[in-house]
Order: sequence, then C-alpha cells, then structure tokens
Amino acid sequence: MTTNSPLLQPLRQPLRQQAAALRDGTLSASELAEAACAAYASRGKHDNAYLTWQGEAALAFARATDALIAQGGDSGPLMGIPVSIKDIYAVPGLPTYAGSSRRLPASWERPGPIVKALLAQLPSLMGKTHTVEFAFGGLGTNAHWGAPRNPWDSQAHRTPGGSSSGAGVSLISGTAGLALGTDTAGSVRIPASMTGVAGLKTTAGRWSAQQIVPLSTTLDTPGLLARRVDDLAYAFDALDANLSPKPSRVAASPELADLTFGVPESFFWDDCSPGIAEAVQQAIRQLEAAGARVVTLELPNTDEAYELFQKGGLAAAELAAFLKAELPEMEDALDPNVAARIRAADDMPAWEYVRRRSVLDKLCAAAAERMGQVDAVLTPTVAITPPTLESLEPEGAYPKANMKALRNTVMANFMGLCGLTLPVGRDAAGMPVGLQVLAGPWQEARLLAIGQAIEAKLGTGPDILGEPPAP
Amino acid sequence: MTTNSPLLQPLRQPLRQQAAALRDGTLSASELAEAACAAYASRGKHDNAYLTWQGEAALAFARATDALIAQGGDSGPLMGIPVSIKDIYAVPGLPTYAGSSRRLPASWERPGPIVKALLAQLPSLMGKTHTVEFAFGGLGTNAHWGAPRNPWDSQAHRTPGGSSSGAGVSLISGTAGLALGTDTAGSVRIPASMTGVAGLKTTAGRWSAQQIVPLSTTLDTPGLLARRVDDLAYAFDALDANLSPKPSRVAASPELADLTFGVPESFFWDDCSPGIAEAVQQAIRQLEAAGARVVTLELPNTDEAYELFQKGGLAAAELAAFLKAELPEMEDALDPNVAARIRAADDMPAWEYVRRRSVLDKLCAAAAERMGQVDAVLTPTVAITPPTLESLEPEGAYPKANMKALRNTVMANFMGLCGLTLPVGRDAAGMPVGLQVLAGPWQEARLLAIGQAIEAKLGTGPDILGEPPAP
Repeated sequence: MTTNSPLLQPLRQPLRQQAAALRDGTLSASELAEAACAAYASRGKHDNAYLTWQGEAALAFARATDALIAQGGDSGPLMGIPVSIKDIYAVPGLPTYAGSSRRLPASWERPGPIVKALLAQLPSLMGKTHTVEFAFGGLGTNAHWGAPRNPWDSQAHRTPGGSSSGAGVSLISGTAGLALGTDTAGSVRIPASMTGVAGLKTTAGRWSAQQIVPLSTTLDTPGLLARRVDDLAYAFDALDANLSPKPSRVAASPELADLTFGVPESFFWDDCSPGIAEAVQQAIRQLEAAGARVVTLELPNTDEAYELFQKGGLAAAELAAFLKAELPEMEDALDPNVAARIRAADDMPAWEYVRRRSVLDKLCAAAAERMGQVDAVLTPTVAITPPTLESLEPEGAYPKANMKALRNTVMANFMGLCGLTLPVGRDAAGMPVGLQVLAGPWQEARLLAIGQAIEAKLGTGPDILGEPPAP
Repeated sequence: MTTNSPLLQPLRQPLRQQAAALRDGTLSASELAEAACAAYASRGKHDNAYLTWQGEAALAFARATDALIAQGGDSGPLMGIPVSIKDIYAVPGLPTYAGSSRRLPASWERPGPIVKALLAQLPSLMGKTHTVEFAFGGLGTNAHWGAPRNPWDSQAHRTPGGSSSGAGVSLISGTAGLALGTDTAGSVRIPASMTGVAGLKTTAGRWSAQQIVPLSTTLDTPGLLARRVDDLAYAFDALDANLSPKPSRVAASPELADLTFGVPESFFWDDCSPGIAEAVQQAIRQLEAAGARVVTLELPNTDEAYELFQKGGLAAAELAAFLKAELPEMEDALDPNVAARIRAADDMPAWEYVRRRSVLDKLCAAAAERMGQVDAVLTPTVAITPPTLESLEPEGAYPKANMKALRNTVMANFMGLCGLTLPVGRDAAGMPVGLQVLAGPWQEARLLAIGQAIEAKLGTGPDILGEPPAP
C-alpha cells in the first residue's frame, strides 16, 4: 500500500472538512483512525515517528466515539481527529521518556492543561512521537532512539528537524491530522519546515507548559503542527478558549492588499542552503504581486541575541537545574550532543544567567515595539536543508548544523514573539522550504488569519509539495 | 518645640480625616506641610530620615494645592497629604542614590508607575528618605550616609530597621503622613515594626517595580508605611486602581468573631528578644478573647527557605547582575556589609540560581494552598529588638543580627504572600513590637480589612505607643 491509497484520503482533508463530515455522517472517527493505522502499517516503522504507537487502542476509542456521535454527542471540534503528541508531554497511560533512555517517574504521566484540553474533546490519540532528548536540539537526532526519517528523501536518511522530531513526520506519514509539539528555540517550526507542514509557536505564557518536561522554564512553549495553516487555525480555536488567560478567536482572513510585511535584509538570509532563500523570496514576491506591501524591517540586536544563544542561552542552565533536582541519575546517561550543550552552563555564574534574562527582557520590549510597525515579519524558517545523518558524523559537524538550523527561529523565542511556518516550495536538494511569519506577543489569532491569507494565495503544503515518495 | 506641639496635630490625624478636613475647608495643605516642616526643624537633622529634604518646595507646592482646592479642584485622595519616598524610587527632580555613595544616572530620575500614580494626586512631597545601600539589608545601616535614628530611644542610637530606613522614621518624626518603601525580604515591615508604625508589603507583581532601583527583580515589591492600618487602607484604595492589573478595594472590616487566624508554633517564635514574643502573644490572646478563632498552622518548609535565604537567596545574584550591567563602577565602592552579602553570589553557578527559583515556585504554591485554611497568619514581625549601632561593630555581629531581623518577614516574600505589620506593644527594651499579619497572594484588600478589625480591637500605634521621646 502506498500513501496515495484512497483509504488515506479523508485524513488528508482539511480538519474543518473532517469535522463537518464526522458530524453529517459522511465520515466516521473509525475510518480516520483506520486510515492512520493503514498509513502506519505502510510506512510507520520506516519513518520511525513514534516512540509509542497505539493504533489498536485508538481504533477502539474511535469506535466508541462513533457510537457517541451517533447518539448526538459532540465533545468539541477535535472529536474523532487522529492526533499525535510529542514525548515530552505527560499523557495518561503512556510512558514519558522525553527522548531519554529511561522512562520518567509516573508523575510524568499526569496530564497538564493542554493535554487535558485536547483529550477532553475525544480525539483519537495515535501515540507519542519522538523528540530530541529533553528537546535540546534542532535537527531531530537522538542517540537512544534514532532520528525519525524525513519522508521527503526516500534514499538518504535526512533529519526531520527537531526537537519535535516525530511530529511533522507523523503528519506527512499520514498517521495523524494534528500533532502537539513544543518550541523553545524553534522545535515546532524547524520540524514543520523540514517536513513540509505548517507549525504554530505560541507566545510564552499563553498556554501553560505544566506537565511538559521542561527544557527552559522561561522559554518553553506548547505548539501545534498540521498540514495547513487553516488546520492550525481550526485547532487553535478549539484549544485557546480552554488554555489562554486571554483567549481570542481567529477572525476572517484579511486581504493581502491590506497587509504590510516587514522583511529583514540581513541575518536571516545569510548562508542559506541552495534554493532556500530563492524559494522564500519568490513567495514574498508573489505576496507583493497580490497587493501586499513589503518593507524592510530589521529585528533588534539579532547578532547579540544569536551570540547569547550560541553560549547556551538560558536553556543550558535551566535544563541542568532540572536534571540535578529531578533526575540526577540522567546526567551521566545523556545523548552526547545534548550533554555537550548542557556543559555550556558548567562555568556560568548565577549573575550571568540573571544578566541574560535581563538582556532578553529588553530584547522582548524592543521587538514588541518594532513589530508594531508591520502586520508580520517574513523570513526563511530554517537556513539549511535537512542534513543527512552521515553529514553530521564528523567532529564538530553536529554543533555547527544544529546552531544554523536554530538560528532563524530562536529569534522569536528570545524576542517574545509568536510565529508560524508554512511550506512554500523546495530547495535545491528537493527538500521542503518554510516561510516563517512572525507577529508580536499574544497575536496568535491575528497571525493565523494572516497565515491563512498567505496560504490562500500561495497554496497549501499538499498543493505545493504533493505526497512524499513511497519509502 | 517638641513633637507634641499642637501645630503637628493635624498631621497625626487619620489620613481619611485629613482628607475630609482638606475638603471641608477646616484644614489646608499648607498647614499640613508647615506641620511637617516644623517637625523637621525640631528633630529632622537628629533623626536623619532624609537623604533629600525639600520642605520649602513642598510648602510652595502645598500653597498652590490649596488654591486649587479653593477652586473646587480634587486630584485624588492623597491630594495635599505630606509624603516621603524611599531613595530607590526614581522621582522627577530629585537625585537617586539608592543609598550608594554616588548619584545614579539621570534615567533614575524618570518616575515609574507608582510614583506617577502618587504624584498625580498632588500630595506634598517632603523629600526622599534614606535606604540601606541598594536596599540590601534589614537593619537600616549605611556606611555612606549613616543610619537614621530610631526615635524611640533618645539615648542610644538604635537602628530604625531597613532597608526603608528613613520611611518609618519620617512618619514618627512627624514629617510625613504616608511613606513609600519597598520590601524584598522585609524592607517595609521591619522598619515599620521597629519604629512603631504600620506597613504593607504587596504581592510581587501587583504593583510594578519599574523605575525602582532593583535589588531582586524577582522579589522586589513596592509598599506603604503609615501610622495606622486604616491609613494604609486609605492609601491602598487611592493607588491600587491605578496600579494593579486586578484592582480591588478594601471592604468593610469583618467581625473578629468571623475570622480564623493561623499561628505557627515554631520558627517565628524562636529566640525572640525579651518581650517580643510576649507582646505578640498577648495581642493574639486579646483577639481570641474578642471571639476570633485561633488555630495552629505551620507555613511550609520554613527551615529550608531560611537556609536558602542565608545563602543569598536570589537577591545576591540579581543585584550582582544589575551592578555589573548598569553600574559597574559601584562594585568597588560598596558599603562593606552590602559587599559581603553580594559576595555570596560569587561562586554560585547558574543552575543553582535556577534551582532556587524553582524551590521558591514550589514554596509559593504550597504556601498559597496552606493559607487557604485560615483568614490570616499571625507572627511577630521582627524577632529582635532594634540593635544599637555599637552592638553591630564586633566582627560577625552585623550578619547575625541582620539575618535574624529578616527571618520572619522574608518568609512572605519567598512564599509569594502579602503582609502587614502593626504595632502592638513594647519589648523589654521599651522598643515597639510589631504583629505580622500574612495573607495569600493578591489578598491585599482583604488583608487590610482584617488588619483594620485587629487595629480596632487592639488600638492604633499612636494609641498604644503615644509619641516618641524628644530628641
């Protein structure tokens, strides 16, 4: 069976359509779960998106959901939708490893607000997806569990992006219609961009990070991945009212002719892999041709921020503190690439950490003001093509590629912004290219409406990329 | 002239009465400012409460205020009330030293939200009061400017409490009716307790600490000192609506018979100076006799919290970071007692700071839950009698006395609570004793109403203590 089987088609429809079809009786939750299971049978092991796959249990659950729908039950917009959850969320009944080699204590199976809000709507939970260990890496590698395969290259094993390394793959593989990820420096947007799906990074503090194994208590944010921006908007509306202290809803898409986009001239475009800048620039030209106003706008102090990030930012010290306090036995069993990044905090004095927080506070204030000049800022999401695992083996290759993969996305985290990515084309290696759309803090609803306007013009990921090659 | 002069009497009335009299024409702002100036002439230099005294300017301002009142103008509840402001608030036109030896850059003379909200009501600003250098000390000493004198001992130079060392003295001296202080570990409540006035420590985050020279960006809180709890309630209502993201107003006092007070059995009572525990216990017995329910209630993990505080808490690293970033030239010019406390952060790794923040987060959660069992918790505010300066001279005497002075108050800061102190008697040395009343986060309005009920039963500070001896 290939991923183009008609059986899989319902799961590839927009979430809104799936939800409507579930309610008018033309589609059932079990058909969706069966499609996901068929996709998993076809390519699941090969793609290796999941730490824990529970297709059978999800199917049984979907049947019960169908019976409930038949009785007129409606538990919310995500009812019956196949979903995957990154393995750093605590989920009842499923083990949490957070990408480490050991199962975390049972307290990490008690759900936090976002998992509760999601599961209360009775989606079909297909399983937990792989993550970089403790989410501390942007490529998607993992010494304990292996890297999921990027489905867009059937020959070489290319990275899927990370740290939510199985999230984008679970969507492209056809095993889920919505994936929960987290984003501390780009961990939603990078895998979304590298696997050709859309991703939403929320503003820190909007959705609680409770019961998500913490990488950076300051910067961790829950986020969503889906095939289209429209799917993200649909899922955002389904969740935000239950999660945000100041909820909002996605309004009708604005006209492109009414929008002003800021495009930085420097930093984000430097040394991009062949074809990436070209694809993003072409997308921006299309938007401009459709009437959008495009102006030059630099984000503040990007070089200083990137230097601070390369020195370990806040996460190195924050993850070290968490491990020492909660999981001291893990310190000696870390993925070598993760261990190396944590060591950046070994000699950092407390005042330097405090200084960095204060630098970030100022950066956030400056960025919020800057963002007020435009409707959104556009950049390439990731500067590099997904590297092959082989290319990361030489000494020093991983840290270099990892930093560059995270460079364009971490700016949104350090500046307190929210952000989107959506696929806009392919690079010279034939791999998906993402357009990053950034907006000011707490502007998620507006950002998603703008993203829908962009997507309506450029086409959705499935329109642009088609289906991935068979494994 | 003694402080008992009839000229000073209007300034010693409750703020509500002063405000009413200003409006019905039986009192003028200039009479109040004159009374404050007369008090300053009588004992101001001796008490040394002020870094900057501007009696003449305040008097001119008060005359203009009177003209405005005569025109029917009313700029708010604090119009015409003589006030003092601690020298770590930025105030337009007055230098900020933050207790250091050097005037801070002009940016520290741009007012933040609380000073703006206060000054917009046109009080008579008498001057800026002394503080421990960078507010980092609980006794009130200062190697650069000297310690204000505690007015209750006309013989020995006893400490006035700190770090808002001039705030309580400015009230007892008769030079102000309301004083702005700040409280990071007790810096409002300790000077209030040691000088026999009432003090309010707000919940961190309720009132912005912007443009207050930071000691601890995590724990700094603006606060108020006044002669009575009723004055605090009046001033709180005048300011909170303009400052808090979730404002509330002080409702009518509850009946004592409807209140349950929690009293810890251990920690807060250990090794109190003679007469302190006795005075507080007697106050609690009076409340019980008046119908209040008194139950035993321990605050969570006080010993662990105190140990963390003795190691420098968060402030040592946070102040070090601020000085390194903003005032690097100050590091070599610090008061030796302050320098010694900052050095606690020298060898603290970043992860240890992060760990401490996480310990405090858990402590706050546990304390908030615990506080839900009672209406308020009662303890002695300060465990020690205000020490004489002489007694602090021997090697090791200052750190020991300082820690003990801060011990009972810092718990509220570490646990995220709000708190009050009000005078309830004198200790064996004849010095004022404060009762600390603690409530859960954001409960200021309720706490003040409870404090008013307690004060109505026990009597106000002026009732209990009378006037201080002439210098």
